[in-house]
Amino acid sequence: MKTLVVVISARASYSRIRSVVTELSTSMSVQIRIVLIASAAMKKYGRVQEFLNSQGIQVDWKIESQLDAENISSMAKTTGLAILGLSDYLLNTKPQGLLVIGDRHETIAASICGAYLGIKTFHIQGGERTGNIDDRVRFANTFLSDVHLVSNSSAKENLEDCGIDSHSIIVTGCPSLDFIDSALETDLPSEIISGVGKEIMEIIKDEYVIVIQHSETTSILTPKDQIQPTLRAIQELGIPAIWIWPNSDFGGEEIIREIRRMREAGFLKHVHFEKSFEPELFINLLSRASCIVGNSSVGIRECSYLGVPSVNIGTRQKDRKTAENVMNVEFDYDQILEGIRMIKSHKYERSTLYGDGKSAIRIRNFFESFL
Amino acid sequence: MKTLVVVISARASYSRIRSVVTELSTSMSVQIRIVLIASAAMKKYGRVQEFLNSQGIQVDWKIESQLDAENISSMAKTTGLAILGLSDYLLNTKPQGLLVIGDRHETIAASICGAYLGIKTFHIQGGERTGNIDDRVRFANTFLSDVHLVSNSSAKENLEDCGIDSHSIIVTGCPSLDFIDSALETDLPSEIISGVGKEIMEIIKDEYVIVIQHSETTSILTPKDQIQPTLRAIQELGIPAIWIWPNSDFGGEEIIREIRRMREAGFLKHVHFEKSFEPELFINLLSRASCIVGNSSVGIRECSYLGVPSVNIGTRQKDRKTAENVMNVEFDYDQILEGIRMIKSHKYERSTLYGDGKSAIRIRNFFESFL
Amino acid sequence: MKTLVVVISARASYSRIRSVVTELSTSMSVQIRIVLIASAAMKKYGRVQEFLNSQGIQVDWKIESQLDAENISSMAKTTGLAILGLSDYLLNTKPQGLLVIGDRHETIAASICGAYLGIKTFHIQGGERTGNIDDRVRFANTFLSDVHLVSNSSAKENLEDCGIDSHSIIVTGCPSLDFIDSALETDLPSEIISGVGKEIMEIIKDEYVIVIQHSETTSILTPKDQIQPTLRAIQELGIPAIWIWPNSDFGGEEIIREIRRMREAGFLKHVHFEKSFEPELFINLLSRASCIVGNSSVGIRECSYLGVPSVNIGTRQKDRKTAENVMNVEFDYDQILEGIRMIKSHKYERSTLYGDGKSAIRIRNFFESFL
Amino acid sequence: MKTLVVVISARASYSRIRSVVTELSTSMSVQIRIVLIASAAMKKYGRVQEFLNSQGIQVDWKIESQLDAENISSMAKTTGLAILGLSDYLLNTKPQGLLVIGDRHETIAASICGAYLGIKTFHIQGGERTGNIDDRVRFANTFLSDVHLVSNSSAKENLEDCGIDSHSIIVTGCPSLDFIDSALETDLPSEIISGVGKEIMEIIKDEYVIVIQHSETTSILTPKDQIQPTLRAIQELGIPAIWIWPNSDFGGEEIIREIRRMREAGFLKHVHFEKSFEPELFINLLSRASCIVGNSSVGIRECSYLGVPSVNIGTRQKDRKTAENVMNVEFDYDQILEGIRMIKSHKYERSTLYGDGKSAIRIRNFFESFL
Repeated sequence: MKTLVVVISARASYSRIRSVVTELSTSMSVQIRIVLIASAAMKKYGRVQEFLNSQGIQVDWKIESQLDAENISSMAKTTGLAILGLSDYLLNTKPQGLLVIGDRHETIAASICGAYLGIKTFHIQGGERTGNIDDRVRFANTFLSDVHLVSNSSAKENLEDCGIDSHSIIVTGCPSLDFIDSALETDLPSEIISGVGKEIMEIIKDEYVIVIQHSETTSILTPKDQIQPTLRAIQELGIPAIWIWPNSDFGGEEIIREIRRMREAGFLKHVHFEKSFEPELFINLLSRASCIVGNSSVGIRECSYLGVPSVNIGTRQKDRKTAENVMNVEFDYDQILEGIRMIKSHKYERSTLYGDGKSAIRIRNFFESFL
Repeated sequence: MKTLVVVISARASYSRIRSVVTELSTSMSVQIRIVLIASAAMKKYGRVQEFLNSQGIQVDWKIESQLDAENISSMAKTTGLAILGLSDYLLNTKPQGLLVIGDRHETIAASICGAYLGIKTFHIQGGERTGNIDDRVRFANTFLSDVHLVSNSSAKENLEDCGIDSHSIIVTGCPSLDFIDSALETDLPSEIISGVGKEIMEIIKDEYVIVIQHSETTSILTPKDQIQPTLRAIQELGIPAIWIWPNSDFGGEEIIREIRRMREAGFLKHVHFEKSFEPELFINLLSRASCIVGNSSVGIRECSYLGVPSVNIGTRQKDRKTAENVMNVEFDYDQILEGIRMIKSHKYERSTLYGDGKSAIRIRNFFESFL
Repeated sequence: MKTLVVVISARASYSRIRSVVTELSTSMSVQIRIVLIASAAMKKYGRVQEFLNSQGIQVDWKIESQLDAENISSMAKTTGLAILGLSDYLLNTKPQGLLVIGDRHETIAASICGAYLGIKTFHIQGGERTGNIDDRVRFANTFLSDVHLVSNSSAKENLEDCGIDSHSIIVTGCPSLDFIDSALETDLPSEIISGVGKEIMEIIKDEYVIVIQHSETTSILTPKDQIQPTLRAIQELGIPAIWIWPNSDFGGEEIIREIRRMREAGFLKHVHFEKSFEPELFINLLSRASCIVGNSSVGIRECSYLGVPSVNIGTRQKDRKTAENVMNVEFDYDQILEGIRMIKSHKYERSTLYGDGKSAIRIRNFFESFL
Repeated sequence: MKTLVVVISARASYSRIRSVVTELSTSMSVQIRIVLIASAAMKKYGRVQEFLNSQGIQVDWKIESQLDAENISSMAKTTGLAILGLSDYLLNTKPQGLLVIGDRHETIAASICGAYLGIKTFHIQGGERTGNIDDRVRFANTFLSDVHLVSNSSAKENLEDCGIDSHSIIVTGCPSLDFIDSALETDLPSEIISGVGKEIMEIIKDEYVIVIQHSETTSILTPKDQIQPTLRAIQELGIPAIWIWPNSDFGGEEIIREIRRMREAGFLKHVHFEKSFEPELFINLLSRASCIVGNSSVGIRECSYLGVPSVNIGTRQKDRKTAENVMNVEFDYDQILEGIRMIKSHKYERSTLYGDGKSAIRIRNFFESFL
């Protein structure tokens, strides 16, 4: 029985890999061992351990490594602590393989330990380009890893251009899309009480859009100037909307202030505002939406699979491959308004650009044959 | 006055960057601060601090991070400790830039801290491909860095193929060649007593070759089978030789045993064996040699500049760009013997493929203009 | 000029040592260097750096070491990180002395580094016994330190009983009392709006008591049974009271629930509840109180100097030396009620058992003569 | 089944606890888990893991924590790393108890983790006073621990004087004496070839003395002046001697130089010099000696049990309790010479001051009843 250590560093990373963990947990030839580091080792950041346990999967080891994050340097120290802990864990357990997920800053602790301790290291979600800061860690992880399980042939080509040996790149599709089909089969709850603004149960009775627009940290426009055209377009459009607050990237605060200012001035009464939804509920709401607006990767990845139209604003996703469902526009009121009007309610064919919902089985087969 | 932190992790890394440190130490607009980590912070591994002090350069901070290296995991822990220490140093000193050198495993501590603390990070010696394990850390450093000071246009193209923005790549030449000209002007000592075998002062009276052959860790041949053809060719050739022992990469021990076995069997009486030479003396001996044989990067980099013929064996340097002075051969007795006979004593033109000896001035100018 | 490193690990520790730092900052023969570790290095835990800066004192170095505290193990990891950072700091700066404060868990990082790096280590607030968990770190710090600056002769005797050399123990008084005299000279603000319950400005018009009762973690009584007698006595007594919530020691939650239950049942309408006060304001309110009730060290230390009567409940302070102002009672309704009635409004002579308000000058003189 | 974690940090610490580990390894109610930290986790420092394995005992976890020791600060960093690793180990394994051994600098990592993670912590060899630097860590360990397994009633009294609760102190005897009886039953090898000087097999044919004299780091005398009287006395005495080199404490180098100087001047021809012996052989040689001379704890502990006379020089052991076999003398030629002449070849009664050879069984019984 070969052992594969799966290092999970955040709730979001777990969501991406969940179908693979479930799939491999029943393998007769590969034993997975889950190691939690950074925020994934803490209950308050998404209860990853509890969630795994509820699925019948045990956590093998936790490495307490999350610094109290006030200074920007806490990312480096958290990574350093994770290296120290992982290094001992791997030295003591001597697994045959190590699975590294994605591009969060602390994931490099896993790829460094894999590379330096001579353990075969597998990286998932490599080769994609976004044009933003996450590219740095994602490609560093690629070079520190031995085998690359990628979403599509475009990602494969990107890695080949970097000089990565073709034989070490396997196109499996992205497992983060695997749970969409089952999520679509769950029922909407009879009541959703959270967030602020127009009642969500009211909004979803009819045609509605979803807005997710993060700060584009490399833009020459101020965050205020980035969000103003969108705010005005959604107000002008007048159809119900679910607006999900931006993330904590630099500039997010200013965007939030601007949205609040509009709201307090009496606008956006047709909009519901929400911090985040449970994954299944979110997929459900997304699948029913007429269109998604903003610059989240969801508009490009999940929506390609769902066939939901996506008005993608600015350059935050500029280097990503897109399916037909995506229309790119600038930070421009007219372009955004026109864009939404043109594509909303159009139903696109399911695209398997980022996966066909069966990546986990493919990844399981790969590990059972080649670990 | 802008501050540039130069992180040095080993004596060898210092040698590569020495001319840049000297050059920048007299700058009126850029202040360098030397930080020593890993083995460079310890007297017993090359006395880096003493050497810097003797050149009038002060060390600003030392980070004790070198683990007692018995297990392979010590590389990861040393890197983790260096991250913890560097992170505090950078948070407290807030420099404008950080210079990361080359591809040793612990250098990634510097590029991680630079990237995660948002300090502009400059990487030197990126973009070169060797086809061996060092590529992994070198390219990871590239992706974590902001600006790339590279040896030649080939390195630049490699980085561009990886999707690195052209404007962030500066061709400066490799500063490790900068000291060759001054080294050539130093006199040979009247006596060199070290090593074993034929007296070195006897050897250099006449035509001689230099042999440096490390273990090729990715070869399907055993280290013994890798070194046997070379040993037999040097024995057959019969001309005096200086043989430098292989490094500590896996397989090196077996190569050493094989060499010793030959010597004890009464062969190789025309050969001098040496662990290492002081840099100036080594350059001097190299410049006078008829040819270098083996698989060291010296045959490709330094010898291109010196115009010394190089018989490069196997695939350890297979992806490196080479000048005219290099002849590639396989682990094959006939090819090696023939190769040496064909090119030895040929004097090639100086190639500036890896630098023109003026890289440090170029790098100083760059920092003075753009930090 | 000799250098003395002062390691501060929390806002509370800074408060204790504040007068010493101020006093030494003007010394011509001893230079202090402030190093912040653990929560003291973070703005959100009391803004220690900002506070120091506002007093014209610079922080020399900060060591990011505070883990995100969810598991009990975070105390150990925070201590470990502080050791790693302090060790480098001391190796690089080579001070003549190191000052360690009190008994918080992470302070042992400083005493370990002092002892192991051979730097003369001075410990302040050693030798006191409380009978609770803090004794462990306080006495461990004592044994790792070279010189002991203690509050009183009783502390000195405790250390001598432990075999500590008498010559290394200096009775200086506790500097945490130094600021009481100046605090008493500040005026009460014209309005104090905070906390809940009866208005504080109403309470202080007349005779009032202050209650601070923490959970006694080693008691066989439940926290509920510990607090019930006090709650009933204060209710029965009926005179206005300022009640300060208990700290986060285990059992504190249960005490808080019990207080809330009483309040919501309509009792304690004559009581004001408060989380904490600024130090100067607190001293002022304390000095005007008829009596303090509970088990805080304030009743024993600060109140001995102020001459304020103190009804000390249970065994949390059982091993502490007390002045005349303290009456010890059990967790018993009758004893508590009777105790308050007996001693409230009695004005005791100022006791200098824990210091005479001039400790900082004495400590400065000591360092100027003996560092 | 309760779990007791035994933290071993060095080969010497293992020797002290060996009988306890063997004894507990067969317990039906207490499961021991061996954790190796610092030098004990490395093969080159005494092969602790291999030795345990050869006795049928498995190591549960190794924490790579030994820094490459060049600077004095490496002791602090090694301790910090051990805390980080132990903290994760204890958080993941949640044992019922933790056993801390003795007084080496890195053992404090174990007592800190035990205390801060709330695991019942047992300390062995507490309460003894030596009057030298080791007292600091030993007593710090005491205060961080919950239960104290001590050598004798004198150690118990010392702890009581420190305010440690009598009920938490158990007199078990020191387990390091447990193996003496079995060692005495082993045969001397027919040949002992090691060390330098007079053949050891020649020496032991007749009456001989053993000399072990370490540098007294706190003495006002230079190491040279400390060792000169002993050297002259042994030379004058003229009877065969086995001289064991001093340890690496500061001053040891100077003592070694002085011994070499004497030897090269043609003296001490009747002396055999040795770095160290295997424990069993050493006990055997000790038991046959007419007397031990110097300042090692062996003269006080092991020799009290063996009844071998001991001339104890200087103040290095000044605070230790001694049995009848010890005669204290100063660094004085006449006193040393006279002392040896007076007590050599006297056979003392076995003293059980430091243990009766049955400590391990007592400790096992204790853990089986009270863990």
